[in-house]
Amino acid sequence: MARPDDLAASVQVLAFDVFGTVVDWHGSIVRELRERHPEVDGDAFARAWRAGYFPAMARVARGELGWTRIDDLHRMILDEILPGFGLQHLGEDQRQHLNRVWHRLAPWPDSVAGLARLKRRFTICTLSNGNIGLLTNMAKHAGLPWDCVLSAEVFHAYKPDPATYGGVADIFGLAPQQVMMVAAHHFDLEGARACGLRTAYVERPLENGPAQPKDVSPQPGNDLHCRDLLDLADRLGA
Amino acid sequence: MARPDDLAASVQVLAFDVFGTVVDWHGSIVRELRERHPEVDGDAFARAWRAGYFPAMARVARGELGWTRIDDLHRMILDEILPGFGLQHLGEDQRQHLNRVWHRLAPWPDSVAGLARLKRRFTICTLSNGNIGLLTNMAKHAGLPWDCVLSAEVFHAYKPDPATYGGVADIFGLAPQQVMMVAAHHFDLEGARACGLRTAYVERPLENGPAQPKDVSPQPGNDLHCRDLLDLADRLGA
Repeated sequence: MARPDDLAASVQVLAFDVFGTVVDWHGSIVRELRERHPEVDGDAFARAWRAGYFPAMARVARGELGWTRIDDLHRMILDEILPGFGLQHLGEDQRQHLNRVWHRLAPWPDSVAGLARLKRRFTICTLSNGNIGLLTNMAKHAGLPWDCVLSAEVFHAYKPDPATYGGVADIFGLAPQQVMMVAAHHFDLEGARACGLRTAYVERPLENGPAQPKDVSPQPGNDLHCRDLLDLADRLGA
Repeated sequence: MARPDDLAASVQVLAFDVFGTVVDWHGSIVRELRERHPEVDGDAFARAWRAGYFPAMARVARGELGWTRIDDLHRMILDEILPGFGLQHLGEDQRQHLNRVWHRLAPWPDSVAGLARLKRRFTICTLSNGNIGLLTNMAKHAGLPWDCVLSAEVFHAYKPDPATYGGVADIFGLAPQQVMMVAAHHFDLEGARACGLRTAYVERPLENGPAQPKDVSPQPGNDLHCRDLLDLADRLGA
């Protein structure tokens, strides 16, 4: 682990995981469900939708599915789970609208202010499995001031594929240790670390909703462990 | 040609050419040369460097070179032209620094204000042959408020390859006519139009320097012909 002062001097690009790290997918989906389909258990619905996400990406990674954007994976999962929540009657327009909730996710309360501070000192980009269009629409909706939107879609590989982490360093012409991955998920930080990137863990104890608090205790190996993005800005002197 | 009102209602994404359209490559290179190498004819140097650009991309398009970023093409051309300007003595660090002048190009006087207005109403992205890192560094340096940085590097094809224009529409899940290409070069707008995009020409009479004014008279086929990006914002009601 490098000291924060050394990190701030050597790191030039901060690459952010987005779903859960910068935006609150669970809370945002629960709110939309409550407004449009108040009869549905929004907490269970949000978790069921998200639970389909990793298996769907794994099918792409194994080659069972060709390259498929998250928008399309989200839609496949949505179509699968709707009947279980009594929403099989939703028509095409309603399904399309609901699927786009992932473009309308709300930032955590610290995200916009934290990113604005970090942007003054570093290049801040996404490195998300979300597709470019989704991430761009989300940034406009939520006011996320990215310098650059990078995505699995640029590399045609999903995190934690090494092509994604190494790809960020390559795009900016930097050594891996000049890039820091910022995420609320240890699998993502482990993947980044294996490629030589610096890593910062962000606590998001309520990512999965208040009924399912996450263990956010520090794990060895990360360069920084932060409460939120304002805390990250403090640590990096931004 | 659609009327401006219809355009503003149907277009959702504005994709901008960058070199010459948004930033002044000629003037920026002339200024840097004057500061660092005042003995060199900056006007001739800038035009010689830029003149190598299209032939170099054509070598990639023909398959003589594998996929190569503009940063690397710029460097190849730089190394070729330096002796002709008496700069063959420049060392590796100086060459690297000079090559990065393309990351430090200054915007035209209207660009930042025009983009800020257009961003309120549309998604604004680059569609440049410049690489992602170059465009991101340029945006930070010049204050260009892109929603998203798209590049030939994303599509592994240089404009006017149809993969680039169609790729923008595809990334945003839009029909081609919902995307407008904005450029100061007719070949670029012709390529976009052939893919079904809307097109806006921007006059940049001094792109090649005051000694080589461009013919910026209107040509048929473009949906809009604009003096600059503030004029474009006026036309689109932004």
